[in-house]
Amino acid sequence: MHILVTNDDGVQAPGILALAQAMRRIGQVTVFAPDRNWSASGHVKTLERPLRVHETLLADGTTAFMSDGAPSDCVALPLLGFVDKIDLVVSGINPNSNIGHDVTYSGTVTAAMEAVIAGVPGIAFSLASQDKPANVPTDYGPAGQIAEIVAKKVLEEGLPEGVVLSVNVPYLSVEAMKGILVTRQGLRVYRDALDRRVDPRGHPYYWIGGEPPGGVDEEGTDVGALLAGYVSVTPLQLDMTNYRAMEVLKSWEWK
Amino acid sequence: MHILVTNDDGVQAPGILALAQAMRRIGQVTVFAPDRNWSASGHVKTLERPLRVHETLLADGTTAFMSDGAPSDCVALPLLGFVDKIDLVVSGINPNSNIGHDVTYSGTVTAAMEAVIAGVPGIAFSLASQDKPANVPTDYGPAGQIAEIVAKKVLEEGLPEGVVLSVNVPYLSVEAMKGILVTRQGLRVYRDALDRRVDPRGHPYYWIGGEPPGGVDEEGTDVGALLAGYVSVTPLQLDMTNYRAMEVLKSWEWK
Repeated sequence: MHILVTNDDGVQAPGILALAQAMRRIGQVTVFAPDRNWSASGHVKTLERPLRVHETLLADGTTAFMSDGAPSDCVALPLLGFVDKIDLVVSGINPNSNIGHDVTYSGTVTAAMEAVIAGVPGIAFSLASQDKPANVPTDYGPAGQIAEIVAKKVLEEGLPEGVVLSVNVPYLSVEAMKGILVTRQGLRVYRDALDRRVDPRGHPYYWIGGEPPGGVDEEGTDVGALLAGYVSVTPLQLDMTNYRAMEVLKSWEWK
Repeated sequence: MHILVTNDDGVQAPGILALAQAMRRIGQVTVFAPDRNWSASGHVKTLERPLRVHETLLADGTTAFMSDGAPSDCVALPLLGFVDKIDLVVSGINPNSNIGHDVTYSGTVTAAMEAVIAGVPGIAFSLASQDKPANVPTDYGPAGQIAEIVAKKVLEEGLPEGVVLSVNVPYLSVEAMKGILVTRQGLRVYRDALDRRVDPRGHPYYWIGGEPPGGVDEEGTDVGALLAGYVSVTPLQLDMTNYRAMEVLKSWEWK
């Protein structure tokens, strides 16, 4: 099995090494990732400029490819033939959870989506380490173990057509985790606020400030599962149609 | 009614002027758009740097605000209080259609999504002018007339909660259009290919090349409606969960 490992934080981010090492326990691994951080970059495909690919080394001395393209490009190039046949694309490990509406912003998730558009199973892994003190290094070990379990299962069973898995891991030891739950996308509660400031020359500038986003703690959702100490596995699809709303709109008279 | 007009092609793009002029026939308009082109930028929210806002003039001499943020930022800043209460956010007019999987890449659609996340109705407008000869200026007039009809209807009826409308207009005169159809998201067929070249110094670089994307011409979809000469109105949602796949995954044993 040939597994492509990518991320949106850039090839130098600690999370991708943990993911690459976990995947090496399952099969052959190619790491191909952006040469810089593209967090919150959404779904980007670079068509207006050519891309470069360079070799680099991960912190364990293994080879990785890096490109000046976006996360989706780092999936598209290998799948279009830069490397040999790929059986699975995994993306991450993102240092923050991607739950609720986050998935529409997440480069980690959209990298996995790009794989699914090309007909290859894709899984995005995110670790809810955002509440950890910033001066303590993040331990990606437990999330790597979970990634191994989930990826192995996907390689055994396959994924339903058009489905991307988004996996969120609580920041706990594997022993302290309560288990793995299949969930639906929950609701984020954004608490952004406009923060207007004035620069030393008297000109205004604006931060999107406010509190970090919260979530509606509901059973059956990714938000609820994480809060309760479970790993959440959410199957996402690319069809965003709201079928119920279609019926409402069909009753409208356009004039 | 106070309508916010934005886009992802930048404030200088012709499509936004047509949309602003159409919206002025319905209500008060504020134009707030990126200061440059963010096409295919996906859903981005800028949290790591502050944003500037400057005044500029559209080609008809009216005032617009522009920011160095992404399309979603150009919705977030006004809605967070940069301008007075907004009743509707419209985004476009994008010079290319946004159908099938395009919606996951589209900055035009994600700007409208950002409005819906903030609880304000959002509509994305795209014009299928991609097949027009490049040396003939694009006529956004008919699409502006359609935008007026759709926006008026949305202001009258409201949108179901959490729904974003993606409207695609065929490149035809209003008289030649067959009508307005409520559709579901169709299937894009991407025909990308890896195009490896060698620079004058002998180093390889890569284009994501190949044919422009096609689509599966199916009745009831945005792809089919456009090909048949209809305006497509597709209600999209932010919940990307594949509920059927949840049942499949729930039968898996994780170990």
